This record gives sequence, C-alpha cells and structure tokens, in this order.
Amino acid sequence: MIDLRSDTVTKPNQGMLEAMMQAKVGDDVFKEDETVNILECRLANMFGKEQALFFPSGSMANQTALKLHTNPGEQVICDKFSHIYNYEAGGASFNSGISCNLIDGNRGMFTAQQVIEAINPDAFYYAKTTLVEIENTTNKGGGACWDFNEIEEIKKICKSHNLGFHLDGARIWNALIEKKESPKQYGEIFDTISVCLSKGLGCPIGSVLIGNEKIMRDAIRIRKVFGGNMRQVGYLAAAGIYALDNNLERLAEDHKKAKEIGELLSTMSIIKKVEPVETNIVIFELETSVNEKDFLRTLEAHNIKIIGMGSHKLRIVTHLDYSSKMHDKLLSTLKELTF
Amino acid sequence: MIDLRSDTVTKPNQGMLEAMMQAKVGDDVFKEDETVNILECRLANMFGKEQALFFPSGSMANQTALKLHTNPGEQVICDKFSHIYNYEAGGASFNSGISCNLIDGNRGMFTAQQVIEAINPDAFYYAKTTLVEIENTTNKGGGACWDFNEIEEIKKICKSHNLGFHLDGARIWNALIEKKESPKQYGEIFDTISVCLSKGLGCPIGSVLIGNEKIMRDAIRIRKVFGGNMRQVGYLAAAGIYALDNNLERLAEDHKKAKEIGELLSTMSIIKKVEPVETNIVIFELETSVNEKDFLRTLEAHNIKIIGMGSHKLRIVTHLDYSSKMHDKLLSTLKELTF
Amino acid sequence: MIDLRSDTVTKPNQGMLEAMMQAKVGDDVFKEDETVNILECRLANMFGKEQALFFPSGSMANQTALKLHTNPGEQVICDKFSHIYNYEAGGASFNSGISCNLIDGNRGMFTAQQVIEAINPDAFYYAKTTLVEIENTTNKGGGACWDFNEIEEIKKICKSHNLGFHLDGARIWNALIEKKESPKQYGEIFDTISVCLSKGLGCPIGSVLIGNEKIMRDAIRIRKVFGGNMRQVGYLAAAGIYALDNNLERLAEDHKKAKEIGELLSTMSIIKKVEPVETNIVIFELETSVNEKDFLRTLEAHNIKIIGMGSHKLRIVTHLDYSSKMHDKLLSTLKELTF
Amino acid sequence: MIDLRSDTVTKPNQGMLEAMMQAKVGDDVFKEDETVNILECRLANMFGKEQALFFPSGSMANQTALKLHTNPGEQVICDKFSHIYNYEAGGASFNSGISCNLIDGNRGMFTAQQVIEAINPDAFYYAKTTLVEIENTTNKGGGACWDFNEIEEIKKICKSHNLGFHLDGARIWNALIEKKESPKQYGEIFDTISVCLSKGLGCPIGSVLIGNEKIMRDAIRIRKVFGGNMRQVGYLAAAGIYALDNNLERLAEDHKKAKEIGELLSTMSIIKKVEPVETNIVIFELETSVNEKDFLRTLEAHNIKIIGMGSHKLRIVTHLDYSSKMHDKLLSTLKELTF
Repeated sequence: MIDLRSDTVTKPNQGMLEAMMQAKVGDDVFKEDETVNILECRLANMFGKEQALFFPSGSMANQTALKLHTNPGEQVICDKFSHIYNYEAGGASFNSGISCNLIDGNRGMFTAQQVIEAINPDAFYYAKTTLVEIENTTNKGGGACWDFNEIEEIKKICKSHNLGFHLDGARIWNALIEKKESPKQYGEIFDTISVCLSKGLGCPIGSVLIGNEKIMRDAIRIRKVFGGNMRQVGYLAAAGIYALDNNLERLAEDHKKAKEIGELLSTMSIIKKVEPVETNIVIFELETSVNEKDFLRTLEAHNIKIIGMGSHKLRIVTHLDYSSKMHDKLLSTLKELTF
Repeated sequence: MIDLRSDTVTKPNQGMLEAMMQAKVGDDVFKEDETVNILECRLANMFGKEQALFFPSGSMANQTALKLHTNPGEQVICDKFSHIYNYEAGGASFNSGISCNLIDGNRGMFTAQQVIEAINPDAFYYAKTTLVEIENTTNKGGGACWDFNEIEEIKKICKSHNLGFHLDGARIWNALIEKKESPKQYGEIFDTISVCLSKGLGCPIGSVLIGNEKIMRDAIRIRKVFGGNMRQVGYLAAAGIYALDNNLERLAEDHKKAKEIGELLSTMSIIKKVEPVETNIVIFELETSVNEKDFLRTLEAHNIKIIGMGSHKLRIVTHLDYSSKMHDKLLSTLKELTF
Repeated sequence: MIDLRSDTVTKPNQGMLEAMMQAKVGDDVFKEDETVNILECRLANMFGKEQALFFPSGSMANQTALKLHTNPGEQVICDKFSHIYNYEAGGASFNSGISCNLIDGNRGMFTAQQVIEAINPDAFYYAKTTLVEIENTTNKGGGACWDFNEIEEIKKICKSHNLGFHLDGARIWNALIEKKESPKQYGEIFDTISVCLSKGLGCPIGSVLIGNEKIMRDAIRIRKVFGGNMRQVGYLAAAGIYALDNNLERLAEDHKKAKEIGELLSTMSIIKKVEPVETNIVIFELETSVNEKDFLRTLEAHNIKIIGMGSHKLRIVTHLDYSSKMHDKLLSTLKELTF
Repeated sequence: MIDLRSDTVTKPNQGMLEAMMQAKVGDDVFKEDETVNILECRLANMFGKEQALFFPSGSMANQTALKLHTNPGEQVICDKFSHIYNYEAGGASFNSGISCNLIDGNRGMFTAQQVIEAINPDAFYYAKTTLVEIENTTNKGGGACWDFNEIEEIKKICKSHNLGFHLDGARIWNALIEKKESPKQYGEIFDTISVCLSKGLGCPIGSVLIGNEKIMRDAIRIRKVFGGNMRQVGYLAAAGIYALDNNLERLAEDHKKAKEIGELLSTMSIIKKVEPVETNIVIFELETSVNEKDFLRTLEAHNIKIIGMGSHKLRIVTHLDYSSKMHDKLLSTLKELTF
C-alpha cells in the first residue's frame, strides 16, 4: 500500500526502534526521565530558547500555547486555514474560552497589514486581541512556506500592540530545509513554537513546545490540566532524538518527490488546478467532470491512498515511508489514469 | 442636543415614568413580581411561545440563548456582522466555550446555501456545528430586514441537520412594522428569540428571551449563573408593557425620518455611498477627501451627535426622542454643510 | 402578610420612589448616566477606594470579583457556608473555571490559621490558591459579624502568600452599624468589596463592586461579558443614593427586633436551639418532635412567612418593611403557638 | 536505590520491552493502530462494556469522564481525598466548569447516606448535582478497598436521582486481586471506569476509559480537545497487553510486602500510627518528636526513597520493581533506625 494521506502514517525503522528500546527512562511526572530531559534541552537550544516541554500531540502543544498567551474572552488572529481553528475540535474556545479572528489569507499566509486591520479597537465590548498565530508550513495551504520578511513585519506589529506571537511549527522542519533557514531565526521572533516529531521526522508520537522561562512557567501546569503528563516518556523522546539526528536533512527528498508529482498532475487533463508545490504537500483540484470518489477509488484499486479535502480538492503528502520505488509506481499509475 | 448615535439613548416620557412608578412589584427571585410575570406572559403569547424571561440586557439574553443551545467546543453559524461575535466582548467563547463560524454575508444577511456550506463535517476533529443565529434587523448591516422566505429556507436546513435556530431580535420590532410581519411568524420558525425593550421601544432597561418550555427550562439557571436575577423588577417591566401599548406602531415614523435622511445624504457631494435605508438606521460612507473626525466635530458644533463605525463609515439612528423639529434641524444643517 | 423570608422582599417607600422618578438618567453603556456615576463615586469614596461599578445583582458583583482575581484552574478559599459556593448556581466554576476550597468554619467565619492550612502547596498538580473570600455578615451563618482583628490577621496571610482578598458585603451595612465600624476600615483591608443596595437598604435592584483602579480595570469588560451592562440605570441608582441617605442608621432597629425574636424563641419549648442573634437574621432549630412543614403552615395561617434552611432549621430576617406593629403581632403569635 | 515513592516509577522488564518492539502499529488518529484496537477491545470485554479508549494519562481519562457526564456549573460528589479534586490541577473546574462537592469520608470512602445528604436540592440557585465519583483503591486513603455492598447502595441512589457514576480505577487492579472481585462486577455498576496501566501493572504510559457506546460517543472528541490523540500508539498498548497477561496476579506479592512493612512500622516507637494496610500502600504518621525531613534524609542515606504526604504523614508504595531482596533490605534498615 502506498499511503499518501498524511506524513503522520510513518512507522519507525529499525534504527529508531532500537533507539527507543535502549532509552534510559524515569518518571517524567517527577521530571526524572533523562531521555526526555535531553530532548527538551536539545530543542530549546536549537531554537535559542530557555525551555521546552514534551507533549503527546501537536494539538496539545498548540492548545497549551493558546492558554499561556490568553485569558478567556480574548481573541487570537490567525488564518482561515489555520489548524487551531479548523482541526483542533473547537479547542481554542473549549480550553481557553477564546475566539479566532480569521484572516482571509493567501494559501494560509497573510500580511502585517492584514494583522493591523484585524486588531480589535480597545473598547470593553470588543473581544480583546492578545495573540497572533501562524503556521509554517501551512497544512491546508498546501505546504506553503512563509516569507520570513513578512514574519518579521508581523512581529513589529505584535510588539507595538503588545500581542503574543505563536508559531504552529507542525511542519517547520520542512520550511527550514526548503528555505535553508535556521531554527534560531524563528526562536528570535516567536514567543512560543510548537514542533512536531511525528510528521516529517517520522516519530510515532510527540510534539514539543518551546519558549522562554517566563511564558513557559505555567506550561507544565496546563499540560497537567489537560492530562498530558506521562510517566516513562523516554521511549518516545528517544525516537525524537534519533529523528533529529537522522531524518531532518532527508526532508529535501520528500519535497523533490512532491514537486515531481505536482508537475505531472499539472499536465493531466482531468486536473483543473495544482497548488504551487513548495514542500511535501500537493493540493490539487479535479476537473468538474471527474467524480472525486471515483478518482479515489481508482487510485485505491492501484493500492494508492490519498485524501479528499472537500470542495473537489485532494491532497497528497510525501514522507519518510514513501520510497523511490513507490514514487515510480505512483507516477506511472497517474500517467495511465483514464476517466 | 440631537443624539443620533443609537436608539438606546432614549429616556422614558411622563406616561412611561408613571407606569413604572405605579407598578406592582415583588421579589422576582421568588417569581413574585406580578408586573414582570405579566410582561413575560404577554411576550410569550405574542410570539406564540410557551415561556419568556426578563433580562437586564440583550447581550445577556443572547448569551443565555447561546448556552441553552450549545455545549463547549461547538460552533454557531452567524454573519460576520453579527452582534454576538462583534459586540458582546467575546462572550460566546467566554461563557459557552463555543466559536462563531462567520458567514461573509450581504449587509448582515446570508442564504440557506451559505449555511449548508458552513456546516462542519461530522468528524471528531472538527468543532461540532449545533446552532444558526441571525439578527433582524441587522445592526452593522444598516437596519436591513431579512427576506422571510430565506429565513424559512434556513429553517429547513436547521431541521435536516438538527441545528438550533436563534433570532437576535434586538430590533425585530422595526422589521415587524416595516415588513408588516407578525411576531407569531417568527415564533413558528425560531427556537429562541431575544427581543429588546430599550431600543426602538424606548424603555430604560431590559430584554426578554422567548422560547418553548423545553429549551427554556434552564434559562433561569443560566441567568442566575451570570447574575442576571434581580429583585423588584416590576419597575422595569412596567416600562416594557407601556412601550408595547404605545411605542410599537410609531416606529414607522422613525423609518420615515431615516429614509429622508438617507435620501438627502445620497445627494451630497461629500458622501461617497449610502447603504439602502430600510428601517431606522442610516449607514453612509464619506468621500475619502473628507476627514471623518472633522465631519463629526462639525456636526457636534451644531449640537448633533452621530457615531463612527470604522473604515470611514458613519451611522445615524432615529428613535423615539428624535422629534420632527430635530429632524428639520438635522436636514437643514446637512444641506448647509461645506467641506 | 408579614414576610420575614428575606430582607430582599422590601419595596420602595414613597420617598425612594420619588427619588427614582426624578433621577437624571443617560445611557450608562456610554457612561453618560449621571445618577449612577454619582452613586459609584460616592461608594468608592465611602470605602476609600478609587472605583466602583453598579451591577444588577450581588451574584454578578461577586462573580465578577472572582474573575478579576483568578485564572481558570485556580482556587479560592472560603467558608463552607459561603454564598459564592452555595447560592450562585455553581457560577465560580462556570464563569471563572475555579474551585472553592471550603473551610469548615464557625457560623460562616474562620481563622487566619485555617487559611494557612488551606493554601495548596506550590506544585503543578495542585490547583493554585490565589484568593480568599469572606462574607460579612454571614448569611447562612445567621447574620454573624466577623471579628475585625481576625480579618486583619487573614490579610497578613494574603499579603505574605500573594493572595487576593474579596469581601462579599451583601450585608456589610448590618455589620458596620452593629459593630460601629467604618467602611474605610474595610476599604483598607480588601482588594474588592461587593455591597448590596437591595437587602437592608431596601432598594429594588442593585449591587456595587468597589476596588482600586488596577484590579477594577477589567470589571466593566467582565460585566459586559455576563450581560450586566444596562442603559438608563439612574432610576435604580437614585434608589441607592436615597437609601444611603435614609436607610442606613435605621438598621439598628432591625437588629433590635431580631434579638427580641431570638430571645422569645429561646424560651419556647418547641425550639431546640437558637443561633446567637447579632444582626437581622435569626436561625433556629425546631425540636425533632415538631414537624417543620406543620410549623411553617401554622405561621402562614397567621399571615406570617418565614423560610426553611434544611436540616430542621428555619430562618427569620427582619427588614425595613417589618414594622413595629408587625413585630408585636409576630411576638404574640409565637407566644400562643401550641404543638 | 529502593524507590517506594509511588508505583508509577516502575520500568518495563525485558519481556514487556520486546512486546513493545514487536507491536504492529498504525495511525490511531485514523483508528488504524491494530494493537491499541486490540487492547481497547480486550478491556471493554473484561469489564463487560461496549467501548474503551486509550489515554496518555489517568488524569485525562478522568477529566474526559467528568466532561462526558456533566455540563458547566454542575457538581460532582466525591471524597475530600479524591484524586480528581486534589491532584488534577483544578482540572474539573478548568476543563468542565464543574465543582466538587466533597464528602468527609473515611479513608477516602463514604456511604450511600452521605451521598443522599450531599445532593443539592432542585432549585436554580444551587449547582446541579449530576455525578458521583469514587476511587478504588483510594490513594490518599492508603490503598483502602471499598466494600462492594456500599458501592451497590450508592448505585441505587444514583439511579433514583439520575446521577452518573464514575470509577477512578487507577488502582482497581489492586482491589480486584485483594478482594477477589471481577471486573464485570464493576462494569455492571459504573457508567464509566478509568483504569491505569502504569501503576501496579508496570507499563510506561497509559490509561483506558471504559463505558458503553452512548456515554462514550463523545470521548474521542473530548480526548482530541485536550490533545490526547496520538499516532502510533501501539508501542504503548503492547505494554498494556503484556501487563494484563503477566503482571496482574502478582499484585498479591506487592500487598503481602506492604502488609509486612505496615506490621513492622506498627511496632516502632517513632511511629505514632499506621493506617490499616489493605493493598500496596502504607501510610503512617511519625511521632511528633521525630522530624519528618530528618526521617526522609536518613532513609535516603540508606538508598531508600519514600514520600511525604503533609501533616507529618508519610507514604510507602510497593510495586513490580520492588524485589524481595529490596524488601529484606528495607525491613532490616527500618529495624535498625534510631532517632
């Protein structure tokens, strides 16, 4: 089976499994798991921040960040495509009592000018704007990478309006590799950053929230409130350390394959439009004459799984477990498709 | 002073004041205030519903309705201009832990088709859509009245998708008078309706939430949680009864004056655009050459107060305390304005 | 009917009604109601604080104070008899997401030592203690007045542990009159104080929250979130001003009558126990041989209403509308009771 | 080091590690991890329920249960020693907006009569009582096992008052083994049961919430809101399956050792009191002449770690990694202690 529904479907290889099983572990509720301590320390340093905390999921890392930055009734500015608004089960409102002020951006990205316009005036009957959140790369935006200059412009607005700035870095690794940027660049800009170990990096479980001591002080308390405290976490952290050592640079291969898929799709008559491919995500739209379900079924008959995004759009995500052989198979299958 | 900032600035006339002071009152926490009981009963009957409950504000009546219809994490579909999203201080998220799924409507109004598209798919990672809310007339939409046929179409969607349907009727009286509709028409469609006694009707304080027994069962509990329970409420309820007897039909006068203002504004060279005037609200946009603050200051020098809406837009609201004499003064002042 | 169920059942006399009718009012949402502004200013000065804000109920004033002092997940220390825990419909958890750490006090009052023992250790798995709340006089504690020295001792603990200190002063007027204390004494100790205009003072509606600018900054926003913003509030505020001028000193009469009732009850064979009577509340317990409902019915047959507190306890509350004539009638009725 | 602070400090043995390594995994967010599916199915069957769901912690399983049973503002009846009130960081109020109505029980256990007395009357100003929660064995109560007859009596009250009934079964395995009870007995009584894989059973991570389809329907949504959804969970689930196969019956050894420790402590002059030892927890109180910190330091000098509970009480917990050799060492060390 060639599973291209998401980069979350990867499974550890033998090296990662061995790293996991040899991990030195302890009770992380007492902060005595040395492997998770090493991972947290390494990621904090990598981004030039003072602290990092392991989470069972990226959703929880993001939800914790939202809570650290806001009080109930306040508002976070984010893109209409943002994961925190669309795919975290209404958690922003449930957990933090806040609302999302959605910007109608471009492939999940927006401008500093749009942020200025979205900030609520200072009056007691408006929700108070206290946070800006961006996602890099953008998931629903097709793996697009932000222009770092625009991020810097937004940071200026955050500073002058006293707004927090959070990065949902579920796929920040893809942006770093593609744009040849450094983690420290991001650490300098953002107050908090969530990074995922399980997507491009290929770990089974885990995300990490990174920030300076002051904002992170209550992160462990919020994680406990949600029930994200775990015991011998070292088994999961060891996979993270292995991934940082082995699976980071190779993301370029995923991007290369994704671009090749995008190029092929662009030439196909049954495809109406392919979003620009920047990293490991390919979003494309079928011609209205082609039935989406038929298309998915046909691929599945060739042992290929991709995912529907609604509105006649489909998504392909390349990843660690998508081999060159599978890539050849996919390309040849697509070429031979008839509708 | 001619105060046209809002229809909330009205003060009781002698008749209303006398009705207030002669009210028979009791402790409404024990449900022993007969005047509020009479008002609640009258409004329930008027809309063909089983129950009604008095609230200190329209915001609290709306916030209570949102809570009655939803659980934390869920989503209400409403217009991007809606009062519950824009002007209730983030209360939907603070009080009910819900988010607003904003439709980009037309002057605060949207279509049944737009509702269908806004409903989240049934998957655990989406916020669950459970409520649709509309405002009639629309405040930020310039006092526009909904087409009742469209409301009926939306109701069908609500039924088939098991969604609640709430009407923010802060200015429903204006719609009823303008469109010659009956309260019972609305009672048949909506699960809950909030109506305001203090805007067009001219009372000092008060809104009422109306619905059938099943949905209203917990309304008194939610009102208590917010602290909206009051003691000798009859003084306020008496004003409401007086207003229903005396101030309802006369809303037509406010609409007539508003239309005359709108017509005059349309002819003025310094005005770029006037929104269609349907009821008692006139929203207009200045030419970019005219400074908004200068314009407001000039009017204020003529003892006329109106309000800025942001984005170079201004709002005039006619009401009970805006006499014909004031109207003549306004029109002549506007005619003589030079910039 | 002699209604002794609560001091909330009072109705304005002619003087108060006239003060209400003649009130100068405005739209308080624009902060243009001069009568409410005068009342707020007067109460702030009276307690030596910088700000005061009018609320439709004491519950909302308390709930707002809880929110101003706390963040979700935190804990307030209060007595097991406290109004905020028992009679505000679970609002502390609903509105602020906080829990009450209940002290098993004496008639609603506790010691500084008990506060020290109730403070949670500083660890991420405990709810963080951030507030202490007391009620003076205590309602469920039978109108008991706190020893001011103990309040000062508790304040020291609050200071050394960085805890807020809120006074539920629903009946603070009774304590002030009975103990010959001054409002400024309380203003010096507490961060926030809620006072009620509707109980001993006899107004139809209203409570006021008092505090310094820093803690009160967001009070108007929280009040708006709950929907406690009202329009022409001056009618209610005028009653408050009248009450402060006319109904404060006379509380001594209510206390005198309550003590006389307590003394008589103490001599009756069907009464097992009478709580010490300090102000205007008398709580007593029937002998187990006497059926509570029979007792209440018998009194009602004499046109006397009192209220059951559960556990075979009953409560009598004296007030402004309980005349000397009614008092004589009650005493003679009680003397003649046979069971 | 002999670590007796908690039974959460255990580390997987070689057998468990191998089971983990060989686990077949998949993306559990798509419900495609077959190992977690097997574990969930097995536990549901074991307790005679329809569904089970894996959680990263017992706190999250409990917090999810609280949310499934309640709406904001409601109240759960539980013991003053309960984990949900004391050790989940105020999560009941933070996550669900509910309050705990604490019963002053006996070693963490209470009676059906006490439940009846704790249920709030049905009035809008009381928090609505909707849930009863018990813990078996009780942690803070010293590993005490509930009398099953009393649980059955409480169930009758729950039924007649329409209350949910949740079991915090963090150490239910210890109760089952000690009392020779069956999981199905518990499944018949409780609406929801959380069980822990990481304490007595020795897994590194994980708890499971068990219940019938109707109440569990939203469990996956609540888990997602908290961020408890994980990807390749099979590694953790495999440990759970191994533990159910290998580590359940052996809990009797932990109990035997704990009782021997308790007996020895009872004979020591520096020990004031030892709580009855029923399972794997020993709680004892030092004589006031003995300094708690000195006592802990002395033990630590002998490579023995135990934990302070506050109020001069200490706790020892026996577990899988506490060998017979360690046991002998502990007993001989205790015998030779001098103060």
